[in-house]
Amino acid sequence: MKNTKERILAGGLDLLTREGFAGVTLGLLAEQAGMSKSGLFAHFGSKEEVQLGLLGKMTEVGAATFVAPAMEQPAGLPRLEAVFKGWLGWTEKAGLRGGCPVAAGMFELDDADLNNPVRQRLALLEESWRTLLKQLASEAISTGELNANLDLDQFVWEMCGIYLNHHVSYRFIRDPQANERAITAFSALVRRSIMKDV
Amino acid sequence: MKNTKERILAGGLDLLTREGFAGVTLGLLAEQAGMSKSGLFAHFGSKEEVQLGLLGKMTEVGAATFVAPAMEQPAGLPRLEAVFKGWLGWTEKAGLRGGCPVAAGMFELDDADLNNPVRQRLALLEESWRTLLKQLASEAISTGELNANLDLDQFVWEMCGIYLNHHVSYRFIRDPQANERAITAFSALVRRSIMKDV
Repeated sequence: MKNTKERILAGGLDLLTREGFAGVTLGLLAEQAGMSKSGLFAHFGSKEEVQLGLLGKMTEVGAATFVAPAMEQPAGLPRLEAVFKGWLGWTEKAGLRGGCPVAAGMFELDDADLNNPVRQRLALLEESWRTLLKQLASEAISTGELNANLDLDQFVWEMCGIYLNHHVSYRFIRDPQANERAITAFSALVRRSIMKDV
Repeated sequence: MKNTKERILAGGLDLLTREGFAGVTLGLLAEQAGMSKSGLFAHFGSKEEVQLGLLGKMTEVGAATFVAPAMEQPAGLPRLEAVFKGWLGWTEKAGLRGGCPVAAGMFELDDADLNNPVRQRLALLEESWRTLLKQLASEAISTGELNANLDLDQFVWEMCGIYLNHHVSYRFIRDPQANERAITAFSALVRRSIMKDV
């Protein structure tokens, strides 16, 4: 039973990265898993339950693919940079065919009802991700690598902008310089955050 | 005949900003315009034709809402800043209920077939928009406000990242500081682009 559920989620995650939440239909999921729609209902009671399950699966895959390895770097700038570089294009590194479901989902669900549980889960995931990034930047202050006066919220806000435009450059525009542009932008942000005037 | 087409496009643009390309169905468009689906077909031969029409309408609305007024500012930094500030949340200024269809569309259609005409039109629109931004930044080099060694592509790349994260902050996270964060990031980018070392 657990293996079937896992199989549905693994195929569903790939579908989610390519088609967004609107494209994850129970019919397609069942087809992918080689089962009937009613067979699928034995594992998930609703489309929403599947979507929440997929976000859980995504967190797990992202953690294993790039977060955990990057966290092995020494605290401070090396760890922050490793997380940032691992984050860029992480779905491809995880063998998924589409892009980051959080980045795309924040554009897909921005106008969804604020009580929509998928929107809420996505917001929580984004918040905890930004909290982790802030913690990593704060460690780089502790090591003396970043300036103590740094506005951590602003720093992370700008990191997220670089990430989002990397997604667009790499996946939509197919710019061969996407990685280089993102790393140049991040390096400039770090340089500015070392200076006194931040 | 022309008025009906205009009415379909105006309602459709609002729908596009809220629901994305996937949500712009011929049935909904017909309903919004108070006509039958076959009546709609008298004006648009296919869903794709409507979507391309909506992108044309969007360009027209965006130009009137914020591009044209901002272009009245003096060439150089004043004009560049006016365009940037006008761009932030422009759909709301235009009375539309959802967010920028280009920003959202680049996430929605990133995995669409490269031959998809809507994806291609979107890519062209984004390219010409970035070309305009580069031209404005280049004018700010001519006026001596930005450094002559500035990498214009990188400058515009980073502007686009700030814009995308403003969209997320403002529309998805509903951060009351979204505008302030975006303007702080843009000012830092400009400051860095004045210095010799860029």
